[in-house]
Amino acid sequence: MRIDGGGAGGALLERRLDELYAIGAEPDGGTYRPLYSDAWAAACERVEGWMKGAGLKTHRDAVGNIWGRAEGGGTGKSIVTGSHIDTVRHGGRLDGALGIVAGLTAVEALLKDKGKPRRPLEVVAICEEEGSRFATNFWGSSAIIGTIDKPDAAIAEAMRERGLDPARISAAARDDIDTFIELHIEQGRVLESSRMPLAVVSAIVGTAHLEMTVTGRPDHAGTTPMEMRLDALTGAAAMLQAIESITKSLGKPAVATVGKLEVEPDQINVVPGKVIFTVDLRHSDIGGRRALEERIRSLCGTISQERRLGLAIRTLQEKPPVAMHPDVRVLLARAAKECGVQAAELVSGAGHDAQVLAARCKVGMLFVPSIGGRSHCPEEATNPADLRLGTEVLARSLELLAF
Amino acid sequence: MRIDGGGAGGALLERRLDELYAIGAEPDGGTYRPLYSDAWAAACERVEGWMKGAGLKTHRDAVGNIWGRAEGGGTGKSIVTGSHIDTVRHGGRLDGALGIVAGLTAVEALLKDKGKPRRPLEVVAICEEEGSRFATNFWGSSAIIGTIDKPDAAIAEAMRERGLDPARISAAARDDIDTFIELHIEQGRVLESSRMPLAVVSAIVGTAHLEMTVTGRPDHAGTTPMEMRLDALTGAAAMLQAIESITKSLGKPAVATVGKLEVEPDQINVVPGKVIFTVDLRHSDIGGRRALEERIRSLCGTISQERRLGLAIRTLQEKPPVAMHPDVRVLLARAAKECGVQAAELVSGAGHDAQVLAARCKVGMLFVPSIGGRSHCPEEATNPADLRLGTEVLARSLELLAF
Repeated sequence: MRIDGGGAGGALLERRLDELYAIGAEPDGGTYRPLYSDAWAAACERVEGWMKGAGLKTHRDAVGNIWGRAEGGGTGKSIVTGSHIDTVRHGGRLDGALGIVAGLTAVEALLKDKGKPRRPLEVVAICEEEGSRFATNFWGSSAIIGTIDKPDAAIAEAMRERGLDPARISAAARDDIDTFIELHIEQGRVLESSRMPLAVVSAIVGTAHLEMTVTGRPDHAGTTPMEMRLDALTGAAAMLQAIESITKSLGKPAVATVGKLEVEPDQINVVPGKVIFTVDLRHSDIGGRRALEERIRSLCGTISQERRLGLAIRTLQEKPPVAMHPDVRVLLARAAKECGVQAAELVSGAGHDAQVLAARCKVGMLFVPSIGGRSHCPEEATNPADLRLGTEVLARSLELLAF
Repeated sequence: MRIDGGGAGGALLERRLDELYAIGAEPDGGTYRPLYSDAWAAACERVEGWMKGAGLKTHRDAVGNIWGRAEGGGTGKSIVTGSHIDTVRHGGRLDGALGIVAGLTAVEALLKDKGKPRRPLEVVAICEEEGSRFATNFWGSSAIIGTIDKPDAAIAEAMRERGLDPARISAAARDDIDTFIELHIEQGRVLESSRMPLAVVSAIVGTAHLEMTVTGRPDHAGTTPMEMRLDALTGAAAMLQAIESITKSLGKPAVATVGKLEVEPDQINVVPGKVIFTVDLRHSDIGGRRALEERIRSLCGTISQERRLGLAIRTLQEKPPVAMHPDVRVLLARAAKECGVQAAELVSGAGHDAQVLAARCKVGMLFVPSIGGRSHCPEEATNPADLRLGTEVLARSLELLAF
């Protein structure tokens, strides 16, 4: 089935992405549809309308996830595709939106071409994944797997404003999903630089966030000879160098990033007495992630001792890696081949709803290239041909699973 | 002459330092006497009172420097001692205050012991050196050498509030000073760690302040493999390491400090796209300072090229080193010896009024140790015995010059 043919073609895909991008558009570029905002509600209306137009039976669950369902002829759990409808501030046109629009376009084309599926086939617009409004992320998928206990006061209030009852959140939980497939942009530049139009995701990396506090002694920049200093910043610089070289030496897919760094007292003529920096560590394998962290902790400890600096390390967050289901990976690769393309295999360095849903069902993901690797910004873009191809492979995968 | 003997002894020195420290005392520790403030005016009153009590003829010049003068029996230009009366915020008990109080105590003792000097002998309380209120420093000494053109509006307004006429600033200029000697705390820990009670300053370092802007590319911390990054912060870290090792390899008295560093976008999960940091470079020799700067510029340039990062370097400030007058250095060393102590020779890493006055007269400085090297804070302290010794050597120097 070609997505650029017929009514459910590439033009429709692009038009729907444009329409969704316009909802929440910001005057200074990009779009912003935080959870339970007006823009979010308007986007939900639009998507539910499209679902109904495609002949799907819609349902909004207790947290506001929108489900569009085509009943199956036989029995069995559902085959589901989709992504999240919320965005970051100054968000782009494709992150989340693509998975919903492509899923809907694929399902619509399948129903038209193939008629009633063998088993239930659903498209979901997940209410929240980005964590850009409340101190939560994966809110929608967490509700689906039933792991939300009690919402905090701010979210509860925002739910009520949208007519949702915070006491009913558990009703959103599903145990009747067989497989969830999500099409997403890569948000990096690996596919682009290797000139591959599509990837099957093998795993979503595990992430640890560390906060390192290096303590030295603030001293006068003029009156303190070099050898008498306990400079927290040159110590931190040595640690940054070590973190970079350890990570490079471990090789792919290990990545480590020092993204935030703060100096005290931060004065031009005072030797820094304290530096606080963060380390974001990722690896697709829990052992690899732990080895990376261990080596970083050990080497930074040695550096602090050599330089007679204090070092305190605090773990801010720790998320294990999630492997995509092997059967789904095989299926997605087969679907790609049948669409005439050899898919790359890629580890996802970013988090996705699929990693949460993996706790309750088989999951798989497809990535299409991001031009220049740009994401979470107005420049977020993918070649239309790649978007069509991704949607076709998604459609073929859903066909293999549900028909 | 022993400063701990008679009425003008060590007890008087300590009491006057205590009195001055109490003027401008802050509730959370330290003192604050910014230029033309109420605390500043009260301190000026107190010091002028002491001068009069010591039999000096006082005069406030056009910017508020206070001069206490003992006329000489013969002709010749004045011998002057003193320091600045203003402080930084949360300032300590000795920075500036010591030079005024010790100068006054020494002159008072000399007049008592030796009678009328051969040439005019003066104590000066310089109105401002720290630059803690207005965007200026060395305000008082700049007026004395006649290099202030026109004050900015804020200073002019503050002058008027103290009854000073901004149009008359040029009247503060002096061309009748032969020698200026300043006793100051070291503000570092070189004397303390070498167990020396006193130093003769050989030169005041030249300082350059650079601002370095490193430009890379902000990227997703999860989706960007290590080798695809243009990380401005790891690049800056490599530069910091280079700056430290170049400076150490050049040896004393070269110092370089990265005191301020700012990361953009400063997010835990984003590879830094931009880093701005400052470099404070000091050396007692202009050639040494330039060589240091040149090597830093060159090596940072190489690092930025290797890492494909942008690098822009801006000079924020440049002050040449100032050598103390050789005759005065010899005289101060002799006076120390006559007081029974071998003085160290030290380069001052901090700036002082003497470096400005050097443009119009012979200058020299004495340093006493700072406990723990602390300065510009409430913990600023020097052993009473060292304060007494410094005052004695100052008195002997003034005696050699003026009597």
